Amino acid sequence: MEALDYHAGERSKAEFDVEEMKIVWAGSRHAYEISDRIARLVASDPVFRKDNRTMLSRKDLFKDTLKKAAHAWKRIIELRLSEEEASRMRFFVDQPAFTDLHWGMFIPAIKGQGTEEQQQKWLPVAYKMQIIGCYAQTELGHGSNVQGLETTATFDPQTDEFVIHSPTLTSSKWWPGGLGKASTHAVVYARLITDGQDHGVHGFIVQLRSLDDHLPLPGITVGDIGMKFGSGAYNSMDNGVLRFDHVRIPRDQMLMRVSQVTREGKYMHSDVPRQLVYGTMVYVRQQIVLDASCALSRAVCIATRYSAVRRQFGSQNGGPETQVINYKTQQSRLFPLLASAYAFRFVGEWLNWLYTDVTQRLQANDFSTLSEAHACTAGLKSLTTTATADAIEECRKLCGGHGYLSSSGLPELFAVYVPACTYEGDNIVLLLQVARFLMKTVAQLGSEKKPVGTTAYMGRAEYLMQCHCDVQRAEDWLKPSVIVEAFEARAARMSVACAKSLSKFSNPEEGFAELSADLVEAAVAHCQLIVVSKFIEKLQRDIPGKGVKRQMEILCNVYALSILHKHLGDFVSTGCITPKQGALANEQLRLLYTQVRPNAIALVDAFNYTDHYLSSVLGRYDGNVYAKLYEEAWKDPLNDTVVPDGYHEYIRPILKQQLRTARL
Amino acid sequence: MEALDYHAGERSKAEFDVEEMKIVWAGSRHAYEISDRIARLVASDPVFRKDNRTMLSRKDLFKDTLKKAAHAWKRIIELRLSEEEASRMRFFVDQPAFTDLHWGMFIPAIKGQGTEEQQQKWLPVAYKMQIIGCYAQTELGHGSNVQGLETTATFDPQTDEFVIHSPTLTSSKWWPGGLGKASTHAVVYARLITDGQDHGVHGFIVQLRSLDDHLPLPGITVGDIGMKFGSGAYNSMDNGVLRFDHVRIPRDQMLMRVSQVTREGKYMHSDVPRQLVYGTMVYVRQQIVLDASCALSRAVCIATRYSAVRRQFGSQNGGPETQVINYKTQQSRLFPLLASAYAFRFVGEWLNWLYTDVTQRLQANDFSTLSEAHACTAGLKSLTTTATADAIEECRKLCGGHGYLSSSGLPELFAVYVPACTYEGDNIVLLLQVARFLMKTVAQLGSEKKPVGTTAYMGRAEYLMQCHCDVQRAEDWLKPSVIVEAFEARAARMSVACAKSLSKFSNPEEGFAELSADLVEAAVAHCQLIVVSKFIEKLQRDIPGKGVKRQMEILCNVYALSILHKHLGDFVSTGCITPKQGALANEQLRLLYTQVRPNAIALVDAFNYTDHYLSSVLGRYDGNVYAKLYEEAWKDPLNDTVVPDGYHEYIRPILKQQLRTARL
Repeated sequence: MEALDYHAGERSKAEFDVEEMKIVWAGSRHAYEISDRIARLVASDPVFRKDNRTMLSRKDLFKDTLKKAAHAWKRIIELRLSEEEASRMRFFVDQPAFTDLHWGMFIPAIKGQGTEEQQQKWLPVAYKMQIIGCYAQTELGHGSNVQGLETTATFDPQTDEFVIHSPTLTSSKWWPGGLGKASTHAVVYARLITDGQDHGVHGFIVQLRSLDDHLPLPGITVGDIGMKFGSGAYNSMDNGVLRFDHVRIPRDQMLMRVSQVTREGKYMHSDVPRQLVYGTMVYVRQQIVLDASCALSRAVCIATRYSAVRRQFGSQNGGPETQVINYKTQQSRLFPLLASAYAFRFVGEWLNWLYTDVTQRLQANDFSTLSEAHACTAGLKSLTTTATADAIEECRKLCGGHGYLSSSGLPELFAVYVPACTYEGDNIVLLLQVARFLMKTVAQLGSEKKPVGTTAYMGRAEYLMQCHCDVQRAEDWLKPSVIVEAFEARAARMSVACAKSLSKFSNPEEGFAELSADLVEAAVAHCQLIVVSKFIEKLQRDIPGKGVKRQMEILCNVYALSILHKHLGDFVSTGCITPKQGALANEQLRLLYTQVRPNAIALVDAFNYTDHYLSSVLGRYDGNVYAKLYEEAWKDPLNDTVVPDGYHEYIRPILKQQLRTARL
Repeated sequence: MEALDYHAGERSKAEFDVEEMKIVWAGSRHAYEISDRIARLVASDPVFRKDNRTMLSRKDLFKDTLKKAAHAWKRIIELRLSEEEASRMRFFVDQPAFTDLHWGMFIPAIKGQGTEEQQQKWLPVAYKMQIIGCYAQTELGHGSNVQGLETTATFDPQTDEFVIHSPTLTSSKWWPGGLGKASTHAVVYARLITDGQDHGVHGFIVQLRSLDDHLPLPGITVGDIGMKFGSGAYNSMDNGVLRFDHVRIPRDQMLMRVSQVTREGKYMHSDVPRQLVYGTMVYVRQQIVLDASCALSRAVCIATRYSAVRRQFGSQNGGPETQVINYKTQQSRLFPLLASAYAFRFVGEWLNWLYTDVTQRLQANDFSTLSEAHACTAGLKSLTTTATADAIEECRKLCGGHGYLSSSGLPELFAVYVPACTYEGDNIVLLLQVARFLMKTVAQLGSEKKPVGTTAYMGRAEYLMQCHCDVQRAEDWLKPSVIVEAFEARAARMSVACAKSLSKFSNPEEGFAELSADLVEAAVAHCQLIVVSKFIEKLQRDIPGKGVKRQMEILCNVYALSILHKHLGDFVSTGCITPKQGALANEQLRLLYTQVRPNAIALVDAFNYTDHYLSSVLGRYDGNVYAKLYEEAWKDPLNDTVVPDGYHEYIRPILKQQLRTARL
């Protein structure tokens, strides 16, 4: 018997080799094979089922998460999975858990900030999960401004200990994942105080709970901070609150790779460069950019497949209605998001290279590219997470009413994704950092210091300030050089305009504050240029597979021209392009949509997501949407009985006009 | 003892009479007094508490909703509330319930589409709630395209009955609120078939459940469609699925005001104009616009108050950090939303007048303004709901990490609000209707038929196509006439440009489909003009109260100039304004933010929302945010025990390296 496939017709229309595109998407054949194998392993294991997740109460959801985490760990041991495979398994289990923080933050913090000795002591027990750790930085009153943290770690030379303390309510640690219920240990960030002197914020390893009975140790108050956005979603995580009442830890639990406190209480620095910390930030943020492309591609996959199933209007002579994916309004909203998913994937891949490059330079004491790399990752983190959060919601709306059902998978995807916009640097704060770097770059133009890396184009600012776009016909917009120059000119002109406005202020900081909204826009223009450039650079390499490169070129153009259309005001008002050229870009965009259309389903198939991972009735591989929606509905607990609980107390008395006497 | 008020300093800075502004916001002193009284009544009644709502399981939440609905009905009877007061009570209870559909859709459908006789039979029992009704239109496979519905109502002359039937899976009724568990009756939309002939979709009153035991009647399958977006939110509503297996109803249960089926099975029309139906649409949509201003103002109130509490960065000499509301980046995101809340309020008020006007004309058989009114309400429904959904999420992000907590109130507000973008007309489909009307208007320019109402400016298209904005200094942008002309010119030029492009297609329908994305943008420009114009018109009236009018003028300018900045590409590329004038508008906008700043808290106080209604720790009137966040956290069920349920099965075996032998 043939498997049911409502999308078979769509799939046969594809003009490229989907299997080869899967490898492009995964990054390499090796990465593809691991992902594919682990995804199927997870999908076929009943413990990992998640289709009922949004119906669980908070307590049941948390217990389910503990169960999955334990089961995943068991499978990792049984199957002797590599670190890479284990990480893919956690990814495909797709349920935020304390293990994410243990592996993703606690262990890296010790690796990055601990001395050799500390690493030898703590890492082996952490790798075996004989302790479970989290990362306790943010406080109730302090997020973005790490230097404003209030928790104190005061050295007591009498006992050779630090006293960790929460002096105010707002100093309560607040938000750390895994802290509330699961972690036995934490890396705690606190102000280091020796001999009455405040040395700023440092990291300390603190045991929170007994390894015997999991009860909090004396002086420690710890709990969960409560429900968060959505059902399911991040409610599987025990984001926690933590207060210290003069908790003592041995001196050697301060992370001392960069700074130390001696037995006598003397504070000193080692010769390890402080800049190492930025290397870690680059790493974390490139991961966030790749995560953005995952979340976005998932939403786009659901919306694209459902748009090919859903039909509305346009029936002729009693025939079927039109697939909504054929409407230009649907295409003009959906296809730029599809293109963005690919664009973010490739810029994330490039960031991964950047991280390796920066790390090698740091090891050779070369800090020359560090601030540019830092600005670039900050900006791309901000750009991709903001765009992805908006895009998931747009995909939900593209699914019409049914996108509002939990079984569409989109509400939970949105709710679980949006914190990416505020964690690891608030997106607006990050853009201001980028803007600050851009203003510095503009100020140094003409000096010895040449702009490097992603700001290299600024070196041609003089040309970019007066160049003219020479597009005369719509198809001229397909030339990569034309696109890059327009984006470079726009970014350069916006930065230079900001710098000019800034120069009118006698106090530069005041000017920066006053003009910050404009500066944010200039930073966005710069970041969009990076994404476009890296996509184009990717296309300059050899890409095997029939029609694969061609599809990528189309998507690259869709990405660039849709951004241009959306920010037309920037391009036209800075004189980079004429209104007529803007209209031609829009015309070309429409033609590109027509080229994407027959390949749309295959382009989302290339993400290679299992139905388990997608967790969406609307996004099912086989397109059998309506029968499954109907089937899913009956699983709601409210359908356990035909007459609902509460009928006798609250409905019947209304109908029978007996409310006055009813006891409510 | 003085009540705690962290915002007292902010409140004392206000430059206008807040009490008078409350009346402006409410629409009249009468409306203010009713709202104020009922809001307090609901807030003080423990049955209506809702701070624990996001923690309830689906079943408990639904039962809680039934309880509140019954209690509200009891209070309405006991206090002999007027219809207006009762409606305010349901509003402030603020939990979607079957009663919303009974009063808001079932009863109006009978009133609008039933004959005198039918009204006399059904309305008295409905008013007393001896029956509970819902509105069953959309189907699993059919939403926007009402003419595509599949459910059939076949007349059987033998028995003088209609046979209601669901011929396919996709014909299952799907989504109607109140249908799943509570309703005893429904107005069902089905294709009327007499003597083998299909007369299109008509409404029928169908009993679904026994009035004795609430069991579904024979042939009826009914249930809930399952979890929806968010925790709490719309999960209090039993949106339902319904299938008919040849269910028979008497002939007189077809709603026969406009069309009838006689005893012999003859289909005929009465002399009641079919256009009446549009009158109802105008009514429903003006209500949606007012709802948008409520939801938006609520989110803005929370974000504004919290932005005055939250401090981050900028501490000098150990002093407190800067209130985030003082940052221009925060202001440039928040204040346009504050201005939008007021703008939507006033355009909603105007729509209310429009509805009265249209109704009076219909009664006098004057259909001349109907299609313009219909296009205008469709467009404003789309514009305001899209903007509000986006704005709620933006307000959540403006609250940083803490906005992600359910206790902030914003996640639930978002989840409960977003369906407004897809119900009562999908927002994109509606904009295409507006665009179609605009193209018709352009085509008729120069003919006998003069554009009326909100399209009257099109009569001056010739002038608007070539006029020049004469702004030379930033403050020139404060003149209402300058703003209106810029918006009119932009809207006219975009419509005319679309019409020109359309004329190049030999098949106009093909052209409309191909250019639909551009047409949507032209429709948005037209709708934004309406909002701006109505705000300005409102300011031309007498407005009492010290400084009240001045504040409204500032907000009106913020609204107009922020829209202009956001859509700068439209204004500049159509040549309505120069890039330089665009920059001046932006400069003026920054100055306006400085004027809003001291009044921000008072401007959200003017919404007069109780803490109960806001249901947000971040938006508390007294600003006591941190202590209450901390207090709320401990209420989560996960904090019932210090050691979580699941520790012994799933955490301890990991820590003790006993996973291999553990039974998972």
